[in-house]
Amino acid sequence: MGVSRIDNVLMLLSTSTKFTDKQEDAVLPQIMSGFRDCCFAAGTQVRGGQTTRNPWVLLGGCATSVLPKNEFVLPNGAKAGDLLVLTKPLGTQIAVNLNQWLDDQDMDKLKATGMNEDEIRKGYDAATVSMMTLNREASSLMRKYKAHAATDVTGFGILGHAQNLVKCQEDELDFVIDKLPILEKIASADDGMGRMFQLVKGYSAETSGGLLLAIDPIEAAKYITDLKAANGHDIWIIGKVTAGSRKAKIVHEVQIIDVTLNENEKLVSN
Amino acid sequence: MGVSRIDNVLMLLSTSTKFTDKQEDAVLPQIMSGFRDCCFAAGTQVRGGQTTRNPWVLLGGCATSVLPKNEFVLPNGAKAGDLLVLTKPLGTQIAVNLNQWLDDQDMDKLKATGMNEDEIRKGYDAATVSMMTLNREASSLMRKYKAHAATDVTGFGILGHAQNLVKCQEDELDFVIDKLPILEKIASADDGMGRMFQLVKGYSAETSGGLLLAIDPIEAAKYITDLKAANGHDIWIIGKVTAGSRKAKIVHEVQIIDVTLNENEKLVSN
Repeated sequence: MGVSRIDNVLMLLSTSTKFTDKQEDAVLPQIMSGFRDCCFAAGTQVRGGQTTRNPWVLLGGCATSVLPKNEFVLPNGAKAGDLLVLTKPLGTQIAVNLNQWLDDQDMDKLKATGMNEDEIRKGYDAATVSMMTLNREASSLMRKYKAHAATDVTGFGILGHAQNLVKCQEDELDFVIDKLPILEKIASADDGMGRMFQLVKGYSAETSGGLLLAIDPIEAAKYITDLKAANGHDIWIIGKVTAGSRKAKIVHEVQIIDVTLNENEKLVSN
Repeated sequence: MGVSRIDNVLMLLSTSTKFTDKQEDAVLPQIMSGFRDCCFAAGTQVRGGQTTRNPWVLLGGCATSVLPKNEFVLPNGAKAGDLLVLTKPLGTQIAVNLNQWLDDQDMDKLKATGMNEDEIRKGYDAATVSMMTLNREASSLMRKYKAHAATDVTGFGILGHAQNLVKCQEDELDFVIDKLPILEKIASADDGMGRMFQLVKGYSAETSGGLLLAIDPIEAAKYITDLKAANGHDIWIIGKVTAGSRKAKIVHEVQIIDVTLNENEKLVSN
């Protein structure tokens, strides 16, 4: 973690077997162009990859970098007394699902969420802004302020990743999470759906999620100030590192922080 | 090219949306285990990757290596007088397609090929052996005998890759191909299908194809001897490098070499 320079990106792209030639000619160049633009924004270039055919359009990539040790953050140096900082809100994958169900007019599924169309669209917009925000600044500042350990938060959810991270620490520690910044209304939507996504339990998958870092409290304050200045989004202290037995947990009375887009399209606590 | 040491492999795997949980539990561990075994055979390890859901099962990977310059072959140093060497026969993708049509009992498509069931199965077996043969020895020996330029032969076909390679040479050269080693009966099958795969024209895609290299004639003889000793398969001189204008071509009277599996499951000229 903490890598802010990417040497190379390979693009993995699949067209859809359902496209006509004309549709393929219209859609694929735009996907490739958008992917290239994003890589350029991330300070790197696409230099190869693979294309294939598949029922669904697929897009992915593989980024590589070769760096000296001082240009990344090792994942094992957290200390008791560190704070846990999270750089993006949770709930992206649920927000994307709800929006998909709305597009499909799948009202049976949507009823339980307790959200109306406008709220779902707003949640989706917020998720999109979150997913589009690069972790580049967050990574670079993590080195500047000497974060002790870090991971990204993606498929295993916030608690899944925290558990993976706490296990590989040199010291015997616990990670205790007492706040969860979540896209507005998404936590209660998951409640309404019988908690099928396990969001508040910490297991809902995130797409293009943020960074979770363990960092000295004084450095944490500077990190948050600088990162907010750099990209305008809120950043959250979500817990602390204590002496322990390599467990990560979310406290029973966890505080949910509602996160919305403000008028400047920035993700902020409500 | 010429990289024979792989530092890391990421696995890209998609389960099928059509699998039941039970099918998924049965199939995916075997796929992952097979992929891991192949990486082990190639002298590397899977250390991460990505999983997803998709109508079709998908499997791929991304291999990386960081090497000093003397551990790979630059693609731009071919010289007039070099020979062009190809380390695997052509025709894999057609052979795989024919076998698929046979499994699907798609007799309309198969009729034009002029091949019977036994011949199609044999072609598929030969293609499988070819695809399973690692390019590792071929790469390593390419450095030993100082190949001047090389590429793998995959999606663009033999001529497509030769054209890409000739364009990036430092000298103004042509690549002239006068022999094509092709899995037995596959060339005539493509003829029968109206040359829809453009195999003899040099544009049929290969899966896990061989290496095409430009190499000094004296070194070429040693390269071929050593590589045949290492993996038992034939290796072919398919043409030569001449002074020219950065064009690759297949001569009009190109000689087709039939390639079959011998009794030791090795790919040899018939």
